[in-house]
Amino acid sequence: MSQRSTQHSEYSTAGAYVHAGEEFTRDTTYIEDRIVRDPDRAGVSEGARAWPVAEGRYRLVAARACPWANRTLIVRRLLGLEDAISVGLPGPVHDARSWTFDLDPDGKDPVLGIERLQQAYFARFPGYPRGITVPAVVEIGSGQVVTNDFPQITEDFAKEWTAFHREGAPDLWPAELEDEMREVMRRVYTEVNNGVYRCGFAGSQAAYEKAYDRLWAAMDWLEERLAGRRYLMGEHITEADVRLFTTLVRFDPVYHSHFKCSRHKLTELPNLWAYARDLFQTPGFGDTVDFQQIKEHYYVVHEDINPSQIVPVGPALENWLSPHGREALGGSPFGDGTAPGPVRPGERVDPAHTPLPA
Amino acid sequence: MSQRSTQHSEYSTAGAYVHAGEEFTRDTTYIEDRIVRDPDRAGVSEGARAWPVAEGRYRLVAARACPWANRTLIVRRLLGLEDAISVGLPGPVHDARSWTFDLDPDGKDPVLGIERLQQAYFARFPGYPRGITVPAVVEIGSGQVVTNDFPQITEDFAKEWTAFHREGAPDLWPAELEDEMREVMRRVYTEVNNGVYRCGFAGSQAAYEKAYDRLWAAMDWLEERLAGRRYLMGEHITEADVRLFTTLVRFDPVYHSHFKCSRHKLTELPNLWAYARDLFQTPGFGDTVDFQQIKEHYYVVHEDINPSQIVPVGPALENWLSPHGREALGGSPFGDGTAPGPVRPGERVDPAHTPLPA
Repeated sequence: MSQRSTQHSEYSTAGAYVHAGEEFTRDTTYIEDRIVRDPDRAGVSEGARAWPVAEGRYRLVAARACPWANRTLIVRRLLGLEDAISVGLPGPVHDARSWTFDLDPDGKDPVLGIERLQQAYFARFPGYPRGITVPAVVEIGSGQVVTNDFPQITEDFAKEWTAFHREGAPDLWPAELEDEMREVMRRVYTEVNNGVYRCGFAGSQAAYEKAYDRLWAAMDWLEERLAGRRYLMGEHITEADVRLFTTLVRFDPVYHSHFKCSRHKLTELPNLWAYARDLFQTPGFGDTVDFQQIKEHYYVVHEDINPSQIVPVGPALENWLSPHGREALGGSPFGDGTAPGPVRPGERVDPAHTPLPA
Repeated sequence: MSQRSTQHSEYSTAGAYVHAGEEFTRDTTYIEDRIVRDPDRAGVSEGARAWPVAEGRYRLVAARACPWANRTLIVRRLLGLEDAISVGLPGPVHDARSWTFDLDPDGKDPVLGIERLQQAYFARFPGYPRGITVPAVVEIGSGQVVTNDFPQITEDFAKEWTAFHREGAPDLWPAELEDEMREVMRRVYTEVNNGVYRCGFAGSQAAYEKAYDRLWAAMDWLEERLAGRRYLMGEHITEADVRLFTTLVRFDPVYHSHFKCSRHKLTELPNLWAYARDLFQTPGFGDTVDFQQIKEHYYVVHEDINPSQIVPVGPALENWLSPHGREALGGSPFGDGTAPGPVRPGERVDPAHTPLPA
């Protein structure tokens, strides 16, 4: 297995993320099993398997620190899947081998009974050679990972788990918008979600500068797109907003400095900043964000970028709660639906880590 | 010579600036000779020597990248000492031994004829064991360093070189303000000028957090102090403003991210940001600043903080030319004096590196 193939989602080996002279390329080979309402009819990739949706059968493992995992935490809240799918939360600082359940009593996930997420990967594929990534969905009974294919996980939450959605769950994938959504999400993924990593893990000045220009071309496009519409796809929140939000919320605390994405802070981009605050203040978004865990993850894990592993105290975050004024653009976050209720007691973010509305 | 003693002004050995567990302490032992109007009467430190002011006898060596050297470039311009004291400009990226004249034809200072500033230190003190720092004043005839004691150099420019000041030169050390100035400058030095280094070179999380709190307590004090007065000491520019300015101008391009001084960008502190722009747009300040050299210096030289040595493209800098509105506070930059004239042709900053007023 080459060094390169370990550059997998939010995982790598012993802090080696930057490879001299090279552009960062994300390993996008995932376990492509799906969990669906009708396994016999589901479209799955060759060699992959379809599992049935079932209340209580699966556990979502999603570190708050990780932007890809953060998506699943938001979608689970928005759709009200908390009772159907429980959640395990690894700490922010994984080691060279695996994300770990170091925040749980005795350092073990209370449901899966494991210390390292790697154990669930190995239970499924002994000696699994790729990165141990979050998010991952684990079958509780067997202790085996079912899938770590993050874009498919949230899409299936929305489309396959409908029987378990809460009353008032929003439609995150409106059929009439899906083609345009896929286009927008694709550009957001390659240019922004992944674009910040391309800046931070660039192996040469030239690769970095090219990555920086690509990122900011996309940020300018988004700033413009959000001038006249409240959400990415128009009047209501969709999966496209979830996917952009988890990068925006990490922008000033991490990507601006740690990944040298520093043309402007998010706070200096009026539309994107107001848009990000609007989402942050919407139930289901900000209440899944742990700024302290986010900073610890990047600044401690990427030793080759930050050898001291010192975690910045800044930036000041109270401004995430300031009025955003986006109501003036009209729209309604949940369309015909309603906001999710309060966060479950065991799943609340430490208020010392994130400023949250009262 | 301990590792520690090489942490000298803008100099160190092979990129080792951070020492595990330790608070950063600046070596403040300099060559304390002075250049004065009356060498027989001058107060000099024990063992130090007094040299006479004389037109054309000395060359100031001052890398644009370095904040301590930048002070001397500004004061020389404000006072109109360009004809009396010529200037040599080492490039931004020194090596483990010395600042070098790599920007000059053939890599040699055209007046001193040397490639490395170290040669002038060695001409004075063979085997000179401490850091080879800028700013340094060199006697052209002997090729020997006279002094590298940066706070004394600018004070002597103002008080001892008066015979060579331009007509309209401002009084940077008004006698009636001197006691208060020294208090303000002392706090600015320990808490801000040096405070940013204390954050960046902290050897532990605890040392960093302590340094961060000290820095921001001082930044808040300055933000408050500049709310009601145009300049640090009131209505006119003094040496105190020069000393604060060279740190502020480096804040967003370097200290915010590279040294983790990231509670806010300078652009988010309304009074300090307007004050910094006011000075930047005043002849003698912005026209000495080379943002590209500043970034290259820190990001390339401090390999232990930035192992990739990749230099950020950001931040966007056009906003340094935006209206600052500080005229509303009254005052006049030069008091009874006048602004300095245009920059000498050979001393102009590359306009691709710094946005400057037309």
